[in-house]
Amino acid sequence: MSGSSFGNIFRVTTFGESHGAGLGAIVDGCPAGLEIDEEYIQCFLDRRKPGQSKFATPRSEADKVKIMSGVFEGKTTGTPIMLVIENTSQQSKDYSDIADKYRPGHADYGFDAKYGFRDYRGGGRSSGRETAARVAAGAIAIKILKTMGIAVQAYVKQIGDISIDYNNFSYEEMFNNGLCMPDKEAAEKAAKYVEQLMEEKDSTGALVECMISNVPAGIGEPVFDKLDARLASAVMSIGAVKGIEIGDGFEVVKAKGSENNDSFCIEEGKVVKATNHSGGILGGISDGSTIVLRAAFKPTPSIFQKQQTIDKDKNEVEIEIKGRHDPIVAPRAVVVVEAMAAMTILDMMMSNTTSTLDKLMKTYDLL
Amino acid sequence: MSGSSFGNIFRVTTFGESHGAGLGAIVDGCPAGLEIDEEYIQCFLDRRKPGQSKFATPRSEADKVKIMSGVFEGKTTGTPIMLVIENTSQQSKDYSDIADKYRPGHADYGFDAKYGFRDYRGGGRSSGRETAARVAAGAIAIKILKTMGIAVQAYVKQIGDISIDYNNFSYEEMFNNGLCMPDKEAAEKAAKYVEQLMEEKDSTGALVECMISNVPAGIGEPVFDKLDARLASAVMSIGAVKGIEIGDGFEVVKAKGSENNDSFCIEEGKVVKATNHSGGILGGISDGSTIVLRAAFKPTPSIFQKQQTIDKDKNEVEIEIKGRHDPIVAPRAVVVVEAMAAMTILDMMMSNTTSTLDKLMKTYDLL
Amino acid sequence: MSGSSFGNIFRVTTFGESHGAGLGAIVDGCPAGLEIDEEYIQCFLDRRKPGQSKFATPRSEADKVKIMSGVFEGKTTGTPIMLVIENTSQQSKDYSDIADKYRPGHADYGFDAKYGFRDYRGGGRSSGRETAARVAAGAIAIKILKTMGIAVQAYVKQIGDISIDYNNFSYEEMFNNGLCMPDKEAAEKAAKYVEQLMEEKDSTGALVECMISNVPAGIGEPVFDKLDARLASAVMSIGAVKGIEIGDGFEVVKAKGSENNDSFCIEEGKVVKATNHSGGILGGISDGSTIVLRAAFKPTPSIFQKQQTIDKDKNEVEIEIKGRHDPIVAPRAVVVVEAMAAMTILDMMMSNTTSTLDKLMKTYDLL
Amino acid sequence: MSGSSFGNIFRVTTFGESHGAGLGAIVDGCPAGLEIDEEYIQCFLDRRKPGQSKFATPRSEADKVKIMSGVFEGKTTGTPIMLVIENTSQQSKDYSDIADKYRPGHADYGFDAKYGFRDYRGGGRSSGRETAARVAAGAIAIKILKTMGIAVQAYVKQIGDISIDYNNFSYEEMFNNGLCMPDKEAAEKAAKYVEQLMEEKDSTGALVECMISNVPAGIGEPVFDKLDARLASAVMSIGAVKGIEIGDGFEVVKAKGSENNDSFCIEEGKVVKATNHSGGILGGISDGSTIVLRAAFKPTPSIFQKQQTIDKDKNEVEIEIKGRHDPIVAPRAVVVVEAMAAMTILDMMMSNTTSTLDKLMKTYDLL
Repeated sequence: MSGSSFGNIFRVTTFGESHGAGLGAIVDGCPAGLEIDEEYIQCFLDRRKPGQSKFATPRSEADKVKIMSGVFEGKTTGTPIMLVIENTSQQSKDYSDIADKYRPGHADYGFDAKYGFRDYRGGGRSSGRETAARVAAGAIAIKILKTMGIAVQAYVKQIGDISIDYNNFSYEEMFNNGLCMPDKEAAEKAAKYVEQLMEEKDSTGALVECMISNVPAGIGEPVFDKLDARLASAVMSIGAVKGIEIGDGFEVVKAKGSENNDSFCIEEGKVVKATNHSGGILGGISDGSTIVLRAAFKPTPSIFQKQQTIDKDKNEVEIEIKGRHDPIVAPRAVVVVEAMAAMTILDMMMSNTTSTLDKLMKTYDLL
Repeated sequence: MSGSSFGNIFRVTTFGESHGAGLGAIVDGCPAGLEIDEEYIQCFLDRRKPGQSKFATPRSEADKVKIMSGVFEGKTTGTPIMLVIENTSQQSKDYSDIADKYRPGHADYGFDAKYGFRDYRGGGRSSGRETAARVAAGAIAIKILKTMGIAVQAYVKQIGDISIDYNNFSYEEMFNNGLCMPDKEAAEKAAKYVEQLMEEKDSTGALVECMISNVPAGIGEPVFDKLDARLASAVMSIGAVKGIEIGDGFEVVKAKGSENNDSFCIEEGKVVKATNHSGGILGGISDGSTIVLRAAFKPTPSIFQKQQTIDKDKNEVEIEIKGRHDPIVAPRAVVVVEAMAAMTILDMMMSNTTSTLDKLMKTYDLL
Repeated sequence: MSGSSFGNIFRVTTFGESHGAGLGAIVDGCPAGLEIDEEYIQCFLDRRKPGQSKFATPRSEADKVKIMSGVFEGKTTGTPIMLVIENTSQQSKDYSDIADKYRPGHADYGFDAKYGFRDYRGGGRSSGRETAARVAAGAIAIKILKTMGIAVQAYVKQIGDISIDYNNFSYEEMFNNGLCMPDKEAAEKAAKYVEQLMEEKDSTGALVECMISNVPAGIGEPVFDKLDARLASAVMSIGAVKGIEIGDGFEVVKAKGSENNDSFCIEEGKVVKATNHSGGILGGISDGSTIVLRAAFKPTPSIFQKQQTIDKDKNEVEIEIKGRHDPIVAPRAVVVVEAMAAMTILDMMMSNTTSTLDKLMKTYDLL
Repeated sequence: MSGSSFGNIFRVTTFGESHGAGLGAIVDGCPAGLEIDEEYIQCFLDRRKPGQSKFATPRSEADKVKIMSGVFEGKTTGTPIMLVIENTSQQSKDYSDIADKYRPGHADYGFDAKYGFRDYRGGGRSSGRETAARVAAGAIAIKILKTMGIAVQAYVKQIGDISIDYNNFSYEEMFNNGLCMPDKEAAEKAAKYVEQLMEEKDSTGALVECMISNVPAGIGEPVFDKLDARLASAVMSIGAVKGIEIGDGFEVVKAKGSENNDSFCIEEGKVVKATNHSGGILGGISDGSTIVLRAAFKPTPSIFQKQQTIDKDKNEVEIEIKGRHDPIVAPRAVVVVEAMAAMTILDMMMSNTTSTLDKLMKTYDLL
């Protein structure tokens, strides 16, 4: 079944493989009248593209985005926006090894079980490269949210045992180190850890945190399409993510109600909460506080050590992966988390435009 | 927007409030020919219904399910199955307190922000009572999976600091203690902890674990509709859940690739994995191992202590919640997790029936 | 697959069989704040219910609707509205005849081919009785449209060879004759024709026309979700409909562009069209003129003559249908056409609330 | 809202404008293992592309399709298939006339009402050129249906008053005359009629008929997603279509039940119908007979006569359309009808794979 679309109203459909002709997305349902151009989207792609630091694969992909439709005279027209990124660095090489063997930690075996065969070149559709299309589409969502005063900011909070100290928090610092940690000291420690792992032909997991500020209260649909349910789906759909939490997340297991409940209060005439254990979402609906989510990224499965596995004829074999791979997924995934969060928030804000009869009447100037 | 439906092919739409006439679900897309009756579904509802232990609200709801359509001569017909549960214990009482005030930790404020007003009686649509409809629908999914040899089993793994010991694991034990812990010793300790909290008019969070065994490899759609993304959405949509993880979950943050990768091997001619850090899902597609997920449930927000909050006129006020509330959500939610997991797995197994041309041809006896 | 839902934002899911416990609908996505009660909805059901004229089956169904959820203190809450109609006149009788034989002109054979068996009592899910749920849900859509100044009016335009004369058109007259023709003279002629057919144990087809006035220009999504495509789907989904047309409809085959094009002009400062060959829709988007559609209803397939058919064991047999059947479908279907048209128009007006960035900003008071 | 997708399981999303960089489609949900290449798809595009006869616009578009993803080693992989067609003949010209004025019979006014502005070059997204993407996607659906033994054949049945005579019917003849009429004599008469209209700077409507043979009984979902409802939506979504009918269509208005009912009988051990008034669909489900549908195409609205209209500042003005336009839409639309019909049938056949528990079990080799 079709599973390459995300969102109901702001609807993104992606395509493309790691080593095919290219990849991209159709953004359908984008409101008309938004100023957008390739340069703006490119900024986001450049944050994800390979080769930006020593912690990223040196594969040299320009990741140049082209807008093929849906924008006229510098503005979105309301019709589908086609974003295409051509692949330029598909090395012709001998894939016979991974063509026949299933890489541990990868989707190879699942793809063969599902489809009977697969495009094995660079992971095909299951390559992390697929997320470039998400970033391109997400850039548009981020721009709309920005116009509405909403900011989406993600960063790497923890690598291995090394966690940022909020006392040292500097969002700008994130752009200075190749690990996207907003704490200089932690980033330096983590860099040493990752370098050591690279020497050991190994990789590490990491934790990404994302803050979405200024979302009005009332966003999210009760029951199945809760805002947190949709965010969970959005972020868990990023390849290497194995866990997702909102607000206090897994800490709530040990918490008491008297600790976990946030009091509502009034500050300068506005409704606020004294604390934000909820992470900005209560009962699936935004409560007006900053939305806080965290995603656990597993270590890059492509490591350069010998591993035990099987081939497609069900023989037990050894595999030794070659090629160009990141020792850590998270830094390049930070902007992917932002993209997915933004698409979710925007889609649900668009869903919410008809929650009352008054809103509907107002849209048509009947109130 | 409509947000009360779950699933694409096996599609469940629920309705109902805590203190209205009743609640229930339409199950659309259920295959024809399944033997099902009210007794079978009732068993699952009885696991969730209130009053089953001292840790559950004494509200006396029979939660009797009635099948109104879609079943003929004891079998599903393929047309919508309507499941209805009438509310019988809506105490007429004075709701003026919670009608005007926003309960901390609840969706009250969000509902008013979204809809302009709300059915405040017992939480209305945002009451945990809404999950009865999920359980009724989920029972049907569970029966189909069982027919296919797939088992879904959830239980409470941890309450506060008290965790089960897998050496003592007994699934049957889960049904002996009111806390649904499959470890007698841990359950006893936890019982004391919860009793103490009840005296303190407080509540606790907990961790629920769910195992889904025997799912064939190849289930899940790459990219946005990954199996784990769909499970995350399904389980996070349960009211009190604040985090969801698969396999090693948040532990992957500290793991190395060499530790986290599971080797494929052959056992009795079958593909298996030497370990199961992946929790049965790789790249969003089932890998044939047992699927393992965990959900963090926050403490019941309805505690009987005085709390600070605001009223709908934006005055800061005190609130003291009365009524019938559980000191812990998780034990009654165990079967809800099973229901949501089952609906997800089944829906995606149904989605997968057309993944290859050969399968499609076979269905129509053309191969 | 699930096929019992209609609409994307205002989403209606129906259930129920002719001779089961009952039938009804969940209306999800209805804006909060609409005043609605059972009496209002009942008026629409009474127009459809059997036994209202000599041209309708005498089956005595009260068709009493009950609102089980989603309405509080007389207003919609924004959560799912459950509408249920119990069946009260399921005659216990010998169904062995139609249980085994496929009635010509009915879905019996298709149901067995699809599902392996079927609820044969009174046609089960494929009974026209299913449309009662549409009417109940449609009544809510009609009320919202009315609040927005939009009227939906259908009537029988032609029965056999007898067509209404627009010079005699009186919408009120429609309610005076059992055939729902808004022309007294034509209705009398048609009555004689239908009476004659009843004596001959035969039935007749008819044409229903529907006018939707005051829909603003700009409604409809280009390409696949055009307003006329959605209307066509909505109306064609009514059991007996075999054709649907908009504006000049099939007459366009013979028309020239110079005749078929409608000139735009200005009348009292407003954009109007000099003619309305388009039927209010151009390129799939409303043009501000009255929307005009027509649906061709086939003759009731349940006639009381002997007919040739087969049984489920593939023997050629004779069948003689007994029971209670209308000699003409259209008069009772008029309100069903209104319901389907209203749900479509409303759903697409709700879809249209985010067509521009300005509208989105306005909804959130950011413009 | 997003309205550029068609189908649930075999899901097609299109993009592109008449004079932008290009247009195309993502086909998501296509089963893996289908042999497909650009040459095959090109054959279908060549039937639609301009300049193939004197009755078609001379705009010289190669309409070359490129497959960007989803096909590996000559076979579909099950992942999204991206089909792109670059625009090569966007004449730079002065559009100031149609930029400000609303062309009668076109969607210009509706687009401005909906989106605030529009890409006016060649009609932008509302250009008939959009259908090239449908044809490319439809070619894939047609190939799968062909593999299953199902043929989809459309042709022009009537132009103005001139209708084909089934006694002269030759499907091959359709490819010999520029009007796609499968009757040589009728085609010659019609050619004269269209030539005369071209001299008069006018255009004509036409009727397209489509036959889909060998669809098994049991396809279609009861109630809202009936097979005819979905076909109606599919075909009505083609720009110039104003009416759609199945089987006897609008003729049923005058028919009696005794005439319209088709008897079931047995022929060589198979279930057949003595007649096919139903057009292969009963109660929304295929009955095993050939599916017959007809679509009424309005005259090309772009005629070269002076017409009355308004400009965007609401002044009444004259407009005289220039450029390259067909005097008749239908011949180039024949393959578009085939494409839409094929996508619908295939999608619903895929939906039908889980209609019974036995089918589901069989897919997983559990039966």
